[in-house]
Amino acid sequence: MTEKLFSLLDSYFDDMVSLRRHLHQHPELSFEEKETPALIEAFYKDLGVEVKTGVGGNGVTAVIKGAHPGKTVALRADFDALPIQDEKDVPYKSLIADKMHACGHDGHTAALLHLAKALHLLKDELHGTYVMIHQHAEEYAPGGAISMIKDGCLDGVDVVFGTHLWVTADLDKVEYRTGPIMAAADRFEIKIQGAGGHGAQPHKTKDAVVAGAQLVTSLQQIASRRVNPVESAVVSVGSFVAENAFNVIADSAKLIGTARTFEPAVRDLVEKEIGRITEGTAIATDCTYDYNYFRGYPAVVNHEKETDYIVDIANSIPGVTAQESEMQMGGEDFAYYLEHRPGTFFFTGAKPEGVDVPYPHHHPKFDFNEKAMLIAAKTLGKAAIEYHKQ
Amino acid sequence: MTEKLFSLLDSYFDDMVSLRRHLHQHPELSFEEKETPALIEAFYKDLGVEVKTGVGGNGVTAVIKGAHPGKTVALRADFDALPIQDEKDVPYKSLIADKMHACGHDGHTAALLHLAKALHLLKDELHGTYVMIHQHAEEYAPGGAISMIKDGCLDGVDVVFGTHLWVTADLDKVEYRTGPIMAAADRFEIKIQGAGGHGAQPHKTKDAVVAGAQLVTSLQQIASRRVNPVESAVVSVGSFVAENAFNVIADSAKLIGTARTFEPAVRDLVEKEIGRITEGTAIATDCTYDYNYFRGYPAVVNHEKETDYIVDIANSIPGVTAQESEMQMGGEDFAYYLEHRPGTFFFTGAKPEGVDVPYPHHHPKFDFNEKAMLIAAKTLGKAAIEYHKQ
Amino acid sequence: MTEKLFSLLDSYFDDMVSLRRHLHQHPELSFEEKETPALIEAFYKDLGVEVKTGVGGNGVTAVIKGAHPGKTVALRADFDALPIQDEKDVPYKSLIADKMHACGHDGHTAALLHLAKALHLLKDELHGTYVMIHQHAEEYAPGGAISMIKDGCLDGVDVVFGTHLWVTADLDKVEYRTGPIMAAADRFEIKIQGAGGHGAQPHKTKDAVVAGAQLVTSLQQIASRRVNPVESAVVSVGSFVAENAFNVIADSAKLIGTARTFEPAVRDLVEKEIGRITEGTAIATDCTYDYNYFRGYPAVVNHEKETDYIVDIANSIPGVTAQESEMQMGGEDFAYYLEHRPGTFFFTGAKPEGVDVPYPHHHPKFDFNEKAMLIAAKTLGKAAIEYHKQ
Amino acid sequence: MTEKLFSLLDSYFDDMVSLRRHLHQHPELSFEEKETPALIEAFYKDLGVEVKTGVGGNGVTAVIKGAHPGKTVALRADFDALPIQDEKDVPYKSLIADKMHACGHDGHTAALLHLAKALHLLKDELHGTYVMIHQHAEEYAPGGAISMIKDGCLDGVDVVFGTHLWVTADLDKVEYRTGPIMAAADRFEIKIQGAGGHGAQPHKTKDAVVAGAQLVTSLQQIASRRVNPVESAVVSVGSFVAENAFNVIADSAKLIGTARTFEPAVRDLVEKEIGRITEGTAIATDCTYDYNYFRGYPAVVNHEKETDYIVDIANSIPGVTAQESEMQMGGEDFAYYLEHRPGTFFFTGAKPEGVDVPYPHHHPKFDFNEKAMLIAAKTLGKAAIEYHKQ
Repeated sequence: MTEKLFSLLDSYFDDMVSLRRHLHQHPELSFEEKETPALIEAFYKDLGVEVKTGVGGNGVTAVIKGAHPGKTVALRADFDALPIQDEKDVPYKSLIADKMHACGHDGHTAALLHLAKALHLLKDELHGTYVMIHQHAEEYAPGGAISMIKDGCLDGVDVVFGTHLWVTADLDKVEYRTGPIMAAADRFEIKIQGAGGHGAQPHKTKDAVVAGAQLVTSLQQIASRRVNPVESAVVSVGSFVAENAFNVIADSAKLIGTARTFEPAVRDLVEKEIGRITEGTAIATDCTYDYNYFRGYPAVVNHEKETDYIVDIANSIPGVTAQESEMQMGGEDFAYYLEHRPGTFFFTGAKPEGVDVPYPHHHPKFDFNEKAMLIAAKTLGKAAIEYHKQ
Repeated sequence: MTEKLFSLLDSYFDDMVSLRRHLHQHPELSFEEKETPALIEAFYKDLGVEVKTGVGGNGVTAVIKGAHPGKTVALRADFDALPIQDEKDVPYKSLIADKMHACGHDGHTAALLHLAKALHLLKDELHGTYVMIHQHAEEYAPGGAISMIKDGCLDGVDVVFGTHLWVTADLDKVEYRTGPIMAAADRFEIKIQGAGGHGAQPHKTKDAVVAGAQLVTSLQQIASRRVNPVESAVVSVGSFVAENAFNVIADSAKLIGTARTFEPAVRDLVEKEIGRITEGTAIATDCTYDYNYFRGYPAVVNHEKETDYIVDIANSIPGVTAQESEMQMGGEDFAYYLEHRPGTFFFTGAKPEGVDVPYPHHHPKFDFNEKAMLIAAKTLGKAAIEYHKQ
Repeated sequence: MTEKLFSLLDSYFDDMVSLRRHLHQHPELSFEEKETPALIEAFYKDLGVEVKTGVGGNGVTAVIKGAHPGKTVALRADFDALPIQDEKDVPYKSLIADKMHACGHDGHTAALLHLAKALHLLKDELHGTYVMIHQHAEEYAPGGAISMIKDGCLDGVDVVFGTHLWVTADLDKVEYRTGPIMAAADRFEIKIQGAGGHGAQPHKTKDAVVAGAQLVTSLQQIASRRVNPVESAVVSVGSFVAENAFNVIADSAKLIGTARTFEPAVRDLVEKEIGRITEGTAIATDCTYDYNYFRGYPAVVNHEKETDYIVDIANSIPGVTAQESEMQMGGEDFAYYLEHRPGTFFFTGAKPEGVDVPYPHHHPKFDFNEKAMLIAAKTLGKAAIEYHKQ
Repeated sequence: MTEKLFSLLDSYFDDMVSLRRHLHQHPELSFEEKETPALIEAFYKDLGVEVKTGVGGNGVTAVIKGAHPGKTVALRADFDALPIQDEKDVPYKSLIADKMHACGHDGHTAALLHLAKALHLLKDELHGTYVMIHQHAEEYAPGGAISMIKDGCLDGVDVVFGTHLWVTADLDKVEYRTGPIMAAADRFEIKIQGAGGHGAQPHKTKDAVVAGAQLVTSLQQIASRRVNPVESAVVSVGSFVAENAFNVIADSAKLIGTARTFEPAVRDLVEKEIGRITEGTAIATDCTYDYNYFRGYPAVVNHEKETDYIVDIANSIPGVTAQESEMQMGGEDFAYYLEHRPGTFFFTGAKPEGVDVPYPHHHPKFDFNEKAMLIAAKTLGKAAIEYHKQ
């Protein structure tokens, strides 16, 4: 069975590449996807596969039923792009200014569609049911997963698998991790309100730049002192803006940043400690403040049994090796699927050939090794069709 | 003689007010003055007084020679306005959007012109020569004084007097101070160059927000530790800008600020210590930096003998009392005149009637008590015509 | 075979307890051990086992040869105590003022000696050779392990196992971890040399308290910004001393602290970054400094195969369960054995009965559940006698 | 009259030196003075002058009545020494270990006693009454002045003068200042209470060293931001102690420091702002704190008329010139006399001959030019005997 699947996928490789490049040239931003879901819908209709659009927004799902009884396996690929100007010099460069598939979702989609095509062809010999989840809006909180789940995309599903093409891992590597693999990615905003005035008269003001600077400095204590050192937490102030004339003392300062954690308790702690430090700093500087903490995606926490399963699957694919991943500080709304169903999320090595240090994800020159799409399709495909044995 | 002068000035008061209000409605920014110097020129031509325009730029000087031998006394009034939208609700509100006489230079000019008119009328009885210096561009470094001096406005001058209408002092008060009365007002710019990156991966970056915050905090030590506590120094970072997406770590941060001092040695020390702290902070954070310190006007340092003289003059005017001024952290390019000639700069109390806390200078609702123009004219006038006795 | 071993160990339990309590009453500090190695030597002589004293200082080794061919397995127990006053109220309380077995090494020794007795009795049926390593001076760097190894205690050894009784783990739990399980524990000392003076004249000084305070604050950036957030690092300044009269400005400040890491690259980074921040802070504050970083024990890094083996062994002991340990920030010189030989170090749960939150290791009221000695002996014993099958 | 006085004083100079050196060899600490007041008492008794001991503690007063009517003038000299080991290599070095006249009070006393001797001799020709105030305990708050005043030493007094020998001023200079001349000298103590623990487990602690360091850093804002830059304020943390083992996190940190100000409103502000910053820092770090601010002597605020008078007196003494003093950040309990009576406190230049940078007051090698005693005696003496003309 697996041999048949793999040889079909091998035969689709050129089509996969073509489709990926078409998507690459026509990126659509999160929550603004129109042509991409339409293309996906058309693909399934051409195959004669049952497809549903508008799932939880711009999401698309398709269902392929095997002839034999078995479990229901969901496979997920996201399809949105980023507000980045493509700076690559390739024929399939983005045609849309300031939009780009700079994260590989085009590849996810091309791989899953062709895997679906193969599964559909083999359906008389398959056990169980296969739900293809084509998710919109992964790049922008609150993300598409949460609304697709609310709209029923996981109904009846027993297990869910997903992968991300990953340029920092070598081709032919599948990177897994039990437990947390990607971080909870939250945002915070702090406005320090002082009282401005003339730069020559600090005593008549409450200097918001001095207060904000002290706050940034003290926030370093969260990672250094307040979180268990064997846990991970990042608190980064990305933006500090108090723009004034040189001879003015700042009325207010605006700090915006991100917090990354893996454990819910650490996430709660970080949110609380930012608040505590902000409050204390405001009191010390006689300022007031407005602090808001916006929770983004939770951590992606892989289930042990399903992760062990994907390790075995990956290692059984000729030429592919599974290796443990570091925890990744980036976020992913695949997290929500794993809060509802068993499953695992893994990285499929996609480092471009002949490159030592690839352009990272979200870089204007990002690109990936397209052969990785085939490995992704095979790993997801084999995991799906053999799952009835679990 | 003084009685005649004062009674002439009294009789001009309504004209002074009218002229001031006309100027108030037609403000011109520093280095862009056209109508104002033209009006001044016309005023002197109408009187038949020798007038010179284009002095050091947009400056105007006029000379009145007394019939009797004596010293040459220069009196200075500045005439530029500020880039502020007038928010007062008065009939003489500025007619020009975003420009406003928010510092009282209109009053200085109206007072000096009418004083000149009186001196001209009395010239057959006067000793010595009177040079009226109508200075452009006091509000914006490098200022007009330096170029007017270079263009000869102080040639042959023995002594120079100037005053500023001052709304925080009561009407009928003349505020003097021997030695430093207004501060050296400098500007500095520091760019901290780190290495940006993803907010979730601080270890791959050099966080310019953290470095900049540490720098702001450490700069507080200049006033607290490094300057003699009985001297005065202010180092204010007015602007701190590192504007980025929330999940990014800042590549660079830009700090702009002002430094105020009275003593040249303290000024040098402050410039050096900002540099020292910036260098150390950059080393500690593995960043690089670019630090520039731009010297604005030096401190206004009044001469002792001439200040004692103005105190006696002020106290001799009916209803007027001299009182010692605090040192003011604001800057004034009158400083340059005092680097070349003996003289003194004083404040003429101009607090609006019935107001406890007036809108400060440079405020969109700034206004002053117009009666102060008369006191300014009398103090300068009497100081001028009696100076031959010194 | 295992049954025989376990039933012997069970029969020795009371003796184990007695011996442990004797040791508990007679603690000896690191590098000052005399009676304890003498007691160990006498124990082996009584058994008729080949014993060697003075190994690498106060260490003792004993060798038991099985009748059958096999691997050479080393088992290590440390035997030194701590400079702490015993505050427990028990009959076996320390008899020596200010010295106490507050970490459980008395239990390690009692367990290993009785395990040796059992192995000696069974030696005709055993495969391979058993080296008992009784190590002195674990509590105090540079520790006894390094010199015992230099003195040959690992010569001919194929594998080494060790355990620590662990009061935060429940009895009947064996805690393992592949890779780093205990941290590299280093010490650093920084002296900031400023220039003291009168508290009223900061400008004539270089304030070492202000410089030291800035340094402590900036050191927080190592954990928060400079170490990969999925790695662990702790930098703690435990001692900050600048003791002066209230009206004096400090001439110097002395900071002493500890750094904990698991990865050699992180350890190097931390050492370097403390230096970088110290240098930058000294430059910013015009002070000089003296920075020394003293490397303590490296991280204890367990070998994968031997750890998997001990997990299987532990789980095979009736009533015992293996569970993964968190990485521990404490240090252990067992690290050195694992730099020379394959092996693993594990924790044997020893939480006292009926206690929710036990007194931690090194606490004046520390005690452990003595039944844990039996579990430790069984786990080490079974691991040893079955190792020939590996 | 003045000539007679001066020639008597000149003739006493050798005795003055002898007496000063005797006192120098027999220093007594504040509030422990016995021999010194006894010596003073004996001196007056030998003269036959009315003397009173035990005034407000160890103080001594003597009264000399002129034959002619006039004002009552008080002259004050302090006589206590410091807990410093004399490190000078001179024949009159202190004979008492760890005690030393390191501030010049021995010279004040020798000068005033011999001035009294001269006044007594001339009393038939003098106007008014002369009260000699020999004050104990100037060096240690609460000081002797406050209790001597309470005990009546100023009763009937019209004016009070005092001087301090001053080694940073040249011999033959008398330094005066109207208004504040010496600072209010206060002490503060802050204990930061965190929660200690193992250096490897910061998350289980509240690190008092980190909190204290942040506090020291933030306290710099008082001088830099919160006090009017044309006022003076110093906040110095002289002592920061958190002494622990290297691998411990500090339970608490103790900060002790001094605050110096000239204006009561600034003094209140500083006390309040230290409290505000401490509170905010404790909140930010989840610590508690204990903050105490102990007021020492208030600022010495000279009266204008009496200061003008002493300037004229000083300038009239052959070879002596009056010059304005900087405000001095040191404290003096002469402040209390000036809160009750008109008067002035001035510095008598006492720089040792041939020395550029003298050892400062309170230095173990401090010494002064003994000729200054004669100038001090003449200035105080002439000021006293001519005061009836005021």
